[in-house]
Amino acid sequence: MSIQKMKDQVIVRNEKFVDQAERLKPKFFETIVKPAALIEVKEDSNVIHGWKSEFIAPISTLSDQDYGKNDSFILDFGNHYVGYLTIDVRSTGSPPDAPLKLKLTIGEMPVEMAEPFENYNGWLSSSWLQEEIIFVDVLPGIIKLPRRYSFRYIKFEVLETSPKYRVVFENIECKAITSADIAAIGTISHEDPLLKKMDEISIKTLADCMQDVFEDGPKRDRRLWLGDLRLQALANYETFKTNDLVKRCLYLFAAVPDKHGKVTANIFVSPTLIADDTYLFDYSLFFISTLHDYYYATKDMETLKELWSTAYRQIELALDRLDENHIVRDSSDWWSFIDWEEGLNKQTPSQAVLIYSMKQAINLANVLKSPQRYTLKERLEEIVEATKKHLWDEEQQFFISGADRQISWASQIWMVLAGVFNEEENKQLMKRLLEVKPAVGLATPYMYHHLVEALIISDEKERAITEMKAYWGGMIKDGADTFWELYDPKNKDYSPYGSHLINSYCHAWSCTPTYLIRKFNL
Amino acid sequence: MSIQKMKDQVIVRNEKFVDQAERLKPKFFETIVKPAALIEVKEDSNVIHGWKSEFIAPISTLSDQDYGKNDSFILDFGNHYVGYLTIDVRSTGSPPDAPLKLKLTIGEMPVEMAEPFENYNGWLSSSWLQEEIIFVDVLPGIIKLPRRYSFRYIKFEVLETSPKYRVVFENIECKAITSADIAAIGTISHEDPLLKKMDEISIKTLADCMQDVFEDGPKRDRRLWLGDLRLQALANYETFKTNDLVKRCLYLFAAVPDKHGKVTANIFVSPTLIADDTYLFDYSLFFISTLHDYYYATKDMETLKELWSTAYRQIELALDRLDENHIVRDSSDWWSFIDWEEGLNKQTPSQAVLIYSMKQAINLANVLKSPQRYTLKERLEEIVEATKKHLWDEEQQFFISGADRQISWASQIWMVLAGVFNEEENKQLMKRLLEVKPAVGLATPYMYHHLVEALIISDEKERAITEMKAYWGGMIKDGADTFWELYDPKNKDYSPYGSHLINSYCHAWSCTPTYLIRKFNL
Repeated sequence: MSIQKMKDQVIVRNEKFVDQAERLKPKFFETIVKPAALIEVKEDSNVIHGWKSEFIAPISTLSDQDYGKNDSFILDFGNHYVGYLTIDVRSTGSPPDAPLKLKLTIGEMPVEMAEPFENYNGWLSSSWLQEEIIFVDVLPGIIKLPRRYSFRYIKFEVLETSPKYRVVFENIECKAITSADIAAIGTISHEDPLLKKMDEISIKTLADCMQDVFEDGPKRDRRLWLGDLRLQALANYETFKTNDLVKRCLYLFAAVPDKHGKVTANIFVSPTLIADDTYLFDYSLFFISTLHDYYYATKDMETLKELWSTAYRQIELALDRLDENHIVRDSSDWWSFIDWEEGLNKQTPSQAVLIYSMKQAINLANVLKSPQRYTLKERLEEIVEATKKHLWDEEQQFFISGADRQISWASQIWMVLAGVFNEEENKQLMKRLLEVKPAVGLATPYMYHHLVEALIISDEKERAITEMKAYWGGMIKDGADTFWELYDPKNKDYSPYGSHLINSYCHAWSCTPTYLIRKFNL
Repeated sequence: MSIQKMKDQVIVRNEKFVDQAERLKPKFFETIVKPAALIEVKEDSNVIHGWKSEFIAPISTLSDQDYGKNDSFILDFGNHYVGYLTIDVRSTGSPPDAPLKLKLTIGEMPVEMAEPFENYNGWLSSSWLQEEIIFVDVLPGIIKLPRRYSFRYIKFEVLETSPKYRVVFENIECKAITSADIAAIGTISHEDPLLKKMDEISIKTLADCMQDVFEDGPKRDRRLWLGDLRLQALANYETFKTNDLVKRCLYLFAAVPDKHGKVTANIFVSPTLIADDTYLFDYSLFFISTLHDYYYATKDMETLKELWSTAYRQIELALDRLDENHIVRDSSDWWSFIDWEEGLNKQTPSQAVLIYSMKQAINLANVLKSPQRYTLKERLEEIVEATKKHLWDEEQQFFISGADRQISWASQIWMVLAGVFNEEENKQLMKRLLEVKPAVGLATPYMYHHLVEALIISDEKERAITEMKAYWGGMIKDGADTFWELYDPKNKDYSPYGSHLINSYCHAWSCTPTYLIRKFNL
């Protein structure tokens, strides 16, 4: 995600919270993994992005090959990994009389091995594309790449040796890292093999995103986003239960609010803790939601007490955006994420996120026996009333959003999740949504997650499973080792960034099937 | 230099010599140097390669500038250096939300800043062209480049930041290294400013080539070549007197002869001591010459005794190449370097190098009172006689070479240096050479050195100075900070490698003016 910068950001740093987050730094689990095979990538219009991987030879044959100028090969590690690469390289022929010049292209998907990064023309920084140009002055040598990669495939291109020598590559390995203790959870024995597979891939996705913080995607942006964190935390409670990592992330956000107390949409942890200058209406509110879920997963009262005022402040700030009708003011100068769907009006889904968060805040205020619970309840009633009055279109039987009275999937889904209506009404609304299929649809797995959860809580479990199988099952059919940041079954080249090369193919917000399956016994 | 590999090379390693060379590893002198200015490189058909450097701003202004995608600038360090680069980089604007992708192009000459390396199409490995693609994941950061560069200029090209941030570069510095103790010698106060300048630049050239061994060129090939060593050692005796480095290099060569006892043309010292599989008739003989000069500079009898048999073996092997007429056999399957001059026949200059080396060997044998001195003298007489008989063309009054009776500068020069004729005859030969100017001329500073020395020993000092001033003075006029590997005043783009980009602009074999000036009181 990349959004305009906010002017004049002033951060009020809470050193106590910074220290607490520091103390909660996770332990890493390291695994040495080796490539499985030499492959080639071939054009095939029937597979995603038009490129499929084909086995050439087992990895044991690699050290029998030598390579000269303009030779190349592709290694397949057999699964997705996040970690550090080491490559042994030696020469054959005469003593190497010039440096070796090597290009490595490191990718999560076959398409990254096939389409030259030089042609990339998207609007996110091309520096996310994983590649390296390496000179080796002394052979034999060990190439120990200092950067972390998120990948399954590596393409080696020997750009230069000299006429006098060729090179052999050996002992290629990746020190894969995660802060998730994979050994701590077992697989579930689900009778439905597709749901079982979905559960496994969700867990792998979550694990690869669990690093020093919950990252959104280990390839890109490698950053702690609140919206992603909320879903990762939910998946984590059902699986790894690495709850201290959630706690750490909550403290990181709480440590660097702006001068109004607003929590940023995302956090950098290197070289030091930095609040990004992106603020999103929905993401700030999800601080409450994440704290709420954390408390119910852990009953960690101390943390709840310490972070409650940060959480409550997000409600206050959100309420400031309400107009005289108790409706979130829509304008061109605010940002709420909701989804990447083109043209989506954010007013009504944001109103729903506010209601959703207020209810969770009330739960927490009750736990804390905070007097703020009365204010919250009072305001919530007004807001829910106003929502039904101003945003519900009785004739069309849909929530509308914005000046153009847009009917979007996101508005209906979030209003169901917010529980503005009762279960039966929600069920009818979801039914109508699936029948009418408004044009303004869903763009991301993040929004699909909310669709599935809305169906579940509207007592439409079967339909929820169908939707989940169609969507995440589609990714699996299309070759996902980990779930992708973006997936549009109707347009598999879809990217909100102008190129599918820059998409992240292991992305936190897509890891929720394991949560949905385990939490709701699907 | 790059020459075909010899098949079936078998090395007979002398561990005692390896250990001795190891003990003689030099001490390094480090100097921190900083760039002097921001420059630009402009087209100008009047300057060498068509590119001149123009001052833009002092380096103090650099940290006031910020750079975004596709911005670039060039730094000028004001002189040539060999060493390691460190660059501080920080961001301005929003927190950097994508890696910085930076391209560095590092060059000795303005042309390297101007002509894209991508267009290089010479026959030496392009991996010698000094460039790096660097990703910086965390800003601010310190870019500490692990490779050593030989340079005066650095071009920075910001290939990618993100729309949210720009970068500032600061505290750029080079840890310049040499094993020459520059402080140990003073400049000479020569009345002729051009000779004084030539002396200084020679010394700088020599110093930048003095590293772990005497390298031929710190940009390329960064290697110990016997032919270059011989000239470097001569310059060193007149200047730094780092005589142990010469000794180390002699032991390195003597440590790894082939199974016949032949000394290789060049040596690799990393990752371990390796004899290259290139063997050159003249270079093997220069082992004697270098030992000879070393002994007379140091009177180190112990080393002479220890290395004598290696030296003597080179004569024996060279004599094996003589035909029944005592003339070096010419054929298509042997290699003698002599010069890069296109079409140069190597027979006669090689014959001269043999005579030259035999005389030095006789000197050493006399010192050692070795019985081999008698054999050597006997053989020398036959060879000199045969040389006059078979290679001297009485009618044309020139030495001829090869089946086509080629008259080259190299043949005459080397025969003068070999002292086949007496001083007066040599003087006449050199005079005729400069008048007739045979078409097969001189290609390298290496060969120009021998021209100048031949003039000096033929009592043509003034003419020697004139030639030296025209040649090395020409380089100075053309902007040399250190003397170049290649220089043809009539074709300044000359390269034997197909591109002047790959030429080395600080090259050992060009450092001899200081030797010539100081040794012969020019």
